Amino acid sequence: MTQDKILLDHGSGGKMSHRLISEIMLPLFDNPTLSRMDDSAVLDIRGKRFAFSTDSFVVDPLFFPGGNIGDLAVNGTINDLVVSGASPLVLSVGLIIEEGFPIDQLKTILQSMQTAASSAGVQIVTGDTKVVHKGAADKLFINTSGIGWVPEHIDVGAHRVKPGDVIILSGSIAEHGMTILSQREGLAFDTPIQSDTAALHHIVKRMTMVSRHIHAMRDLTRGGLGTALNEIAEKSGTGMTIHEEKIPVKPEVMAICELLGFDPLYVANEGKLIAFVAPNDVDAVISAMKRDKLGKDACVIGEVIADHPGQVLMNTRIGGSRIVDMLTGEQIPRIC
Amino acid sequence: MTQDKILLDHGSGGKMSHRLISEIMLPLFDNPTLSRMDDSAVLDIRGKRFAFSTDSFVVDPLFFPGGNIGDLAVNGTINDLVVSGASPLVLSVGLIIEEGFPIDQLKTILQSMQTAASSAGVQIVTGDTKVVHKGAADKLFINTSGIGWVPEHIDVGAHRVKPGDVIILSGSIAEHGMTILSQREGLAFDTPIQSDTAALHHIVKRMTMVSRHIHAMRDLTRGGLGTALNEIAEKSGTGMTIHEEKIPVKPEVMAICELLGFDPLYVANEGKLIAFVAPNDVDAVISAMKRDKLGKDACVIGEVIADHPGQVLMNTRIGGSRIVDMLTGEQIPRIC
Repeated sequence: MTQDKILLDHGSGGKMSHRLISEIMLPLFDNPTLSRMDDSAVLDIRGKRFAFSTDSFVVDPLFFPGGNIGDLAVNGTINDLVVSGASPLVLSVGLIIEEGFPIDQLKTILQSMQTAASSAGVQIVTGDTKVVHKGAADKLFINTSGIGWVPEHIDVGAHRVKPGDVIILSGSIAEHGMTILSQREGLAFDTPIQSDTAALHHIVKRMTMVSRHIHAMRDLTRGGLGTALNEIAEKSGTGMTIHEEKIPVKPEVMAICELLGFDPLYVANEGKLIAFVAPNDVDAVISAMKRDKLGKDACVIGEVIADHPGQVLMNTRIGGSRIVDMLTGEQIPRIC
Repeated sequence: MTQDKILLDHGSGGKMSHRLISEIMLPLFDNPTLSRMDDSAVLDIRGKRFAFSTDSFVVDPLFFPGGNIGDLAVNGTINDLVVSGASPLVLSVGLIIEEGFPIDQLKTILQSMQTAASSAGVQIVTGDTKVVHKGAADKLFINTSGIGWVPEHIDVGAHRVKPGDVIILSGSIAEHGMTILSQREGLAFDTPIQSDTAALHHIVKRMTMVSRHIHAMRDLTRGGLGTALNEIAEKSGTGMTIHEEKIPVKPEVMAICELLGFDPLYVANEGKLIAFVAPNDVDAVISAMKRDKLGKDACVIGEVIADHPGQVLMNTRIGGSRIVDMLTGEQIPRIC
């Protein structure tokens, strides 16, 4: 690390986050499960396979169109589990609350957590609450950790991605990030946008029921689609080609991105995933996704190639080709 | 709740914390595992029994005699697992870092986490890092969640405590809390004190190897010995009698407690436990504990009675008897 202090960029989910993890954390906590750096750790415990994942949520503001920090925290950890092929079972909740936080807001947030958890068939089974002095934390931070069970026949992960795989995206991108940013900046638009926060357990179940050749999945959070593709390209040692005109972005979201100078490829989502699927299974997987309310706009956006290992190339709308790098810098802090 | 805002007291681990949990959280997240309110949730997953626990650490200062927030966070969650009868297996780590935090301090803390985890035979397998703006969090908060495996023959929990059980304490109390407070207040003493932060996996293994009649265990953290006894009394519907002169407190710790007006019964510990044991097994359990470096001062401090259900009575050093209530109010904020 060339810096001696933590910067906001270190929490971006992009390049600086990756350097922090790969240069400091992985060498220290040296073990093969962590080093795989998937969304969840998949563990063999007493002859059963489990996924284990953790996520802390510091989103600002706490309430936003489409959700609040509570359902975001539940959906986020559920999604990390399901894209690892796991059926989510239980969650823990760790609250850090600033002194003076209104109890009615806390109740609303906890109620959203319970609603999100129970609609995904998940129980919140253990928790912890800390309170810090006014000024020592900004309102409320939530950690959720979760355990899921991984069925025997399921093996998904970046290590299985190979040239020829087709890249499927579940729906339109950049909604969560632009919603949070609009709220924070106090912007109002004719066509209001809202966060896509949602639990992906149901759509993933539909997908894994029709195909045993889904090689990897990833939910698109901090760093957006661009960063997620780069992570998988890097880990699998493959190249990727995506096609700009195939990537769905709602017009109102695109308009805000353009107005504020954001590239939707790097804007956070909280209810979208990409899947890497063997060509023969693509039609079945897309049909299955389209039957789910979270997959109505599912589509092929590109393919995995043998050339350009570790790189993501994009055929642009205007007919050119450019390299899509990982997010550099913190595009929008405290997005989740 | 009569208050409409969260107070520091709600994070005390004492009465206000219990009201927050029992009046708001339990009715919302209604399920039998959470409602048991043990240190860990013990779950039946696919025919195996697992313990799952979470804890967020907001201790101030981050570094203190005897440890730092890193080993505290690892030992804390390990201890929550082991007092539920589990062998700890894996941990997750969620970091919330304030912008500008020195990377060398972060490295030191992470190194302590790794050292603590590996000396307990536990792997850190998944993690998450968030960075917030300067002023939005005080330096560094750490969440650890953990999974342990519960052997078939082990069943410990407040529900098993019954009249006649003997209460064993593993060693002298109040060291962690008074160390943190001394540091925070900049107090120096002739005989320096240090936190007792330690992982209890080894001493608990010794105990469970010699007895199948350890009915419950509890590590003594926020709220101290007094609160832990009250929690077990309340949940088991039994009464308890303890004997003040049998409770070990190091003279230098007692001196600081007296100087600053703290009752050691309510001061936090981070490497001590109580166990409720059937009378016939007490000698064997104490002998096993004394063979462990964390149990050299293990001793009987009282017994469970049928009278006074839900109450803890203490025979005082001066020959009287008084009720020991749960901690009321926040004795020392941000102790862990």
